Amino acid sequence: MDQDTVAASAPVKVLRVALLGCGTVGRQVAGILLEHADDLAAKSGCRLEVSGIAVRDASVPRPGIDPALLTDDAAALVADSGADIVIELIGGLDPARELIISAIEHGASVVTANKALLAAHGEEIFAIAERNGVDVYFEAAVAGAIPIIRPLRESLVGDQIRTVVGVVNGTTNYILDKMTTEHQSFEEALVSAQNLGFAEADPTADIEGFDAAAKAAILASLAFHSTVRGSDVYREGITDVTTEDIDAAAAMGCVIKPLAIAKLDERSRIEVRVHAALVPDSHPLAMVHGPNNAIFVEATNAGRLMFLGPGAGGSPTASAVTGDLVTVARNRLRGVVGPAHSVYKALDTALMGQTLSRYYLRFRVTDQSGVLAAVAGLLAHHHVSLHSVRQNPTVDGDEPASARVSLMTHLAQESDVRECVEELQNSGLLIGPVRLIRAEGV
Amino acid sequence: MDQDTVAASAPVKVLRVALLGCGTVGRQVAGILLEHADDLAAKSGCRLEVSGIAVRDASVPRPGIDPALLTDDAAALVADSGADIVIELIGGLDPARELIISAIEHGASVVTANKALLAAHGEEIFAIAERNGVDVYFEAAVAGAIPIIRPLRESLVGDQIRTVVGVVNGTTNYILDKMTTEHQSFEEALVSAQNLGFAEADPTADIEGFDAAAKAAILASLAFHSTVRGSDVYREGITDVTTEDIDAAAAMGCVIKPLAIAKLDERSRIEVRVHAALVPDSHPLAMVHGPNNAIFVEATNAGRLMFLGPGAGGSPTASAVTGDLVTVARNRLRGVVGPAHSVYKALDTALMGQTLSRYYLRFRVTDQSGVLAAVAGLLAHHHVSLHSVRQNPTVDGDEPASARVSLMTHLAQESDVRECVEELQNSGLLIGPVRLIRAEGV
Repeated sequence: MDQDTVAASAPVKVLRVALLGCGTVGRQVAGILLEHADDLAAKSGCRLEVSGIAVRDASVPRPGIDPALLTDDAAALVADSGADIVIELIGGLDPARELIISAIEHGASVVTANKALLAAHGEEIFAIAERNGVDVYFEAAVAGAIPIIRPLRESLVGDQIRTVVGVVNGTTNYILDKMTTEHQSFEEALVSAQNLGFAEADPTADIEGFDAAAKAAILASLAFHSTVRGSDVYREGITDVTTEDIDAAAAMGCVIKPLAIAKLDERSRIEVRVHAALVPDSHPLAMVHGPNNAIFVEATNAGRLMFLGPGAGGSPTASAVTGDLVTVARNRLRGVVGPAHSVYKALDTALMGQTLSRYYLRFRVTDQSGVLAAVAGLLAHHHVSLHSVRQNPTVDGDEPASARVSLMTHLAQESDVRECVEELQNSGLLIGPVRLIRAEGV
Repeated sequence: MDQDTVAASAPVKVLRVALLGCGTVGRQVAGILLEHADDLAAKSGCRLEVSGIAVRDASVPRPGIDPALLTDDAAALVADSGADIVIELIGGLDPARELIISAIEHGASVVTANKALLAAHGEEIFAIAERNGVDVYFEAAVAGAIPIIRPLRESLVGDQIRTVVGVVNGTTNYILDKMTTEHQSFEEALVSAQNLGFAEADPTADIEGFDAAAKAAILASLAFHSTVRGSDVYREGITDVTTEDIDAAAAMGCVIKPLAIAKLDERSRIEVRVHAALVPDSHPLAMVHGPNNAIFVEATNAGRLMFLGPGAGGSPTASAVTGDLVTVARNRLRGVVGPAHSVYKALDTALMGQTLSRYYLRFRVTDQSGVLAAVAGLLAHHHVSLHSVRQNPTVDGDEPASARVSLMTHLAQESDVRECVEELQNSGLLIGPVRLIRAEGV
């Protein structure tokens, strides 16, 4: 046999699929549903028939899509089209939340890529789904095509996950990577990202860390079996990263990466935060370039795992959505649902001041004897111990004469380091502010 | 709430788990089952009670394990202990095959790490499991703790996978990595691997590629929805890799990696092979060090993904086994089974001669004018085009005077390259044999 044969006894069972949203991802999903119908039927065991596609303006023609499928009444499509599966690709909280809940209450299973919604209302949605005996799958909500939801929910569920650290926002990784490899300023790199479609016209959700915070919350919930909301996540944007920071990182054999971090601390509190951080060149996360994503997972038995791939974009996200679609269809066909959302703990979230990191600090001091000793004494007083210090020679023409100090701490508590920084700023020893960047994996 | 709380209403349902084998992995699994019973109960929804552990000699005490659980009658344990789930960690074809089939026919679901068995008899076992309405899960069979089976079966199932290339054997990766980074000979590196427990006393299954071939067959079956057996895989060991090869690779900006390769060619034939190959330093697979594994997947929509982590060892493998165990328990508790083995195509396997690669060739020629032209002409005659050629100066004292030629081809067909090599060997132009190494990702 040399032909690519689809089983001769074609499945006759049909499941109806309603698609909400037909933007970058929705168009790709619609295309796959229409063009690969036979293949999806062979994989799922049933034909997946598009019952309708909800868009903002149904009068705008979409190439390759039968206009009869288009509607601008998403609520009616969900309620009245007899959809077995609703794919939500509208994004945002409203009306996505109402539409998903309506879909579930009408007996449909749901596939969504909506990280913001799940990070805010996941608990509610999963509970309603469980009551109604339907699936909610969301592989596409975190890290695009990279399979990370199933690995956390199922493959690693027999293990104790300690740490999840990821580059989960392609826009900010592209920007920092561009600043690193091409020495662009933040503003130049942002414009370049916008021109290539890697950043929105309004880039706030990405560069201020809201997108990454939602993903961090979802990852932390899955990893630690506790509800973590996007609003629980400590969040810093990357807008204050300068080429001077990038150069300083390079001098230490590091790069600056936009990280989402979720860890279980020694008191079983969840540390969950989003910020730029120094990462050593030798760390696997350092080799995540351009708009790619990567997620690094550390578990007691499994050890250190990493998942790498395209974190966004129409096709990769559509790949994750259709994987979920086939899984949900297989479940539905057999009258079953996938594993329930496993939240059986109620762990506290650590306050940011309670978290542990290593810290890079950089500042200018007046060039007089005893200043460095005073700085070191101040840090020691706050239990912050030094890993390395570098004092650069006085810069000619500085007035008053000054020296530049950069240092890396050992693991220290955020609140102690913050107190050090405040005291340093008020000490009269410094000229200008202290620059602080956390370090991971060093 | 600051305590790590397990739900107060403890589940009362009990599933009985029989463990076959108590070696490196089995001991770890038994330890997890006994020490993390509450946690596994919270995750799976039921208590997992060990009904027995089959070992070769039940009279040998095992630390931490109640001797009453031990039996040397595996067949009776499977048939008579009322096991709901049987975990098979004996390995090999017999008696593992009979025991698994007996377990299934007695109504138990199966979790196994047995790549050799699945690569030889997977089709039969999956069919019997489907008939009996039970699960067979095998995440641990490929790449230890790295989640790859679920990603291929479920996350990427809506996509078209084109390529799976992996470092799936930790022993051979350790050996080649040691040869690369510490300039050891193959024999030295093998002894070092054996001393560290990364290689067996009889290393044949690893260094001759049998282990990797079984894994390649499993990956190809999942990726291409066709039955591929271990015996379908073209297989070369790594025993002929020399430090001269390693040096030559380095000179080209490459490393030599032990690869398992499964690709869909342009005629929808499956190329599936295991051999050492040149990989560029910049390729993600080049950074897989020591006994780690990595799997690189290319799919039409998802793009390029990579999964990296510990590929073997007791704890990582036990992590994958317990993940499957919780999943199977969740399924069983709800009276459902996971997705069936999805084999709906019957694609041909390409003959090795039909496969396409780039090739590195190295040989000595007699140092006389026109030899290089003759070599180039011979390659061209066989449609093998050159990417780069390097002729090294004559080595002093060689008798007869000779030059060393190394070349890299563009993509060429294996059979054409083989014919070139044969003609070169018979041409009278060469001194000694031709060294051939395939290249991937260049």
